[in-house]
Amino acid sequence: MNTDEEAIRALLAKWHRATAAGDVDAILPLMSNDVVFLVTGQPPMKGRDAFEKSLRRLLASHRIQSTGEVQEVAVSGDLAYCWNMLNVEITPHAGGSNVRRAGSALSILRKHPGGGWVIIRDANLLAVAK
Amino acid sequence: MNTDEEAIRALLAKWHRATAAGDVDAILPLMSNDVVFLVTGQPPMKGRDAFEKSLRRLLASHRIQSTGEVQEVAVSGDLAYCWNMLNVEITPHAGGSNVRRAGSALSILRKHPGGGWVIIRDANLLAVAK
Repeated sequence: MNTDEEAIRALLAKWHRATAAGDVDAILPLMSNDVVFLVTGQPPMKGRDAFEKSLRRLLASHRIQSTGEVQEVAVSGDLAYCWNMLNVEITPHAGGSNVRRAGSALSILRKHPGGGWVIIRDANLLAVAK
Repeated sequence: MNTDEEAIRALLAKWHRATAAGDVDAILPLMSNDVVFLVTGQPPMKGRDAFEKSLRRLLASHRIQSTGEVQEVAVSGDLAYCWNMLNVEITPHAGGSNVRRAGSALSILRKHPGGGWVIIRDANLLAVAK
């Protein structure tokens, strides 16, 4: 495994940890300013600011725990993609039933001139799971 | 627009034309043998053979017409991605009501040593549209 792939896997691991901790400030540097999140049945969510607003609203009332199994990471120059199989559990702070979502995510990453990787596009194919 | 981006846009246009014509043999060379198709709520569809079988079954009873607006194409070396907004209309040969699906597709492409591009991963985020 080369250092680019290691860096991308470390980014994903950090994303899971920061999400579980509700640490939005730690998640935001993992994506580009012009990131786009694609979800079935919804218009594209464009930009880090929109993502931040949406995540802070959800975390105000819920805890999110996630795990992922990286299926593959491929790098060419300053572009990479990652296919990940995710499990996400969303639990209301107030109690009540959890929602579990499972499925694939296909993410595109870009390497900064400085050397760090960020997610720039993300296709979320998770569905409600039993 | 460089020649790689032109080649990728031409591939997508060819995919639409061949699908409308029901010409499966013309679609298959546009993807790699180990292509993976990701759809929300379904297990990954792995391999060109699985895709071919599924498409031939659908085309036996339906006509598929599709249009796409390419949102972006980005290339780095032998790797590229394309974000496309698609409209797909599926019409039974036997008559009856059409199904229209609309939404994003995020595709990963790989350049062969010979110079041609093929789709290797595809995230389909289309939902039933009115």
